[in-house]
Amino acid sequence: MGKQTGGNGTLGNHTITQIGLLVHDIEAVSAAYAQFFGVEKPNWFWTDTVDKAQTELRGESTEARAKLAFFDMGSLQLELIEPDHNPSTWREHLDQHGEGIHHIAFGVEGMKERIAAMEKGGMKLIQKGEYTGGRYAYLDTFGPLKVMLELLENDK
Amino acid sequence: MGKQTGGNGTLGNHTITQIGLLVHDIEAVSAAYAQFFGVEKPNWFWTDTVDKAQTELRGESTEARAKLAFFDMGSLQLELIEPDHNPSTWREHLDQHGEGIHHIAFGVEGMKERIAAMEKGGMKLIQKGEYTGGRYAYLDTFGPLKVMLELLENDK
Repeated sequence: MGKQTGGNGTLGNHTITQIGLLVHDIEAVSAAYAQFFGVEKPNWFWTDTVDKAQTELRGESTEARAKLAFFDMGSLQLELIEPDHNPSTWREHLDQHGEGIHHIAFGVEGMKERIAAMEKGGMKLIQKGEYTGGRYAYLDTFGPLKVMLELLENDK
Repeated sequence: MGKQTGGNGTLGNHTITQIGLLVHDIEAVSAAYAQFFGVEKPNWFWTDTVDKAQTELRGESTEARAKLAFFDMGSLQLELIEPDHNPSTWREHLDQHGEGIHHIAFGVEGMKERIAAMEKGGMKLIQKGEYTGGRYAYLDTFGPLKVMLELLENDK
């Protein structure tokens, strides 16, 4: 298997672009990463409110938001996520499993078709939302892949 | 923060080179990844026996071995790990937390000095061992970083 990352898989590529890490205190964990790796501490920011983000958890609108901070770690980003207490996959996972990795993310084109293909294969859409310049979706891929996947589609 | 990945941090870089995923059945999970991502299924192999691997868990020699399989996922590798039932961080984590991500890995130079620096900072060495062409170490970095780190040092 070579370095070629296009192809005929379900997502059209197999390049991990982000690792999402759930934390209780984004300020403290950001500071720890910055110090440990000798890099600048990024500013965290809130995800958009539901009117903009159109966040849905299992098909139901939710006001959930999260603080996010991103570290460039080679060719991918480590995403720190501190969710608020509204219903979200972030909050559920943090409450059930504690701090740690929540998902690995892949960029896609044709989000709707990718989700449809995955749902056809028994992988359920858990949460989706919009951000400035694109949209995301988390799917329950624990059964076959043992980790949650996030799809990211950026507008062109 | 740019794409520059050298620097003065504890490891000398901040490039994630592997994500380690614990599984119960490496054959089944490898097949699922290969099918989902449209890539070839890699062959798994056993880690070396203790006489070669010199595996130590918390300073004690252990006969633990694991089946490993690697997928290239962009610029990093996804490492599937199916441990045997001898004492190891893999077996402990799998028994306690179930299948899922176990660690993120970074390449280093000067393994001993890196471990010493981390231990000085309160991060304990959990397991270490040798493989053909190099050596690895897992350190308990859950407190500050919320995920376990693996250091990899390849011979030049």
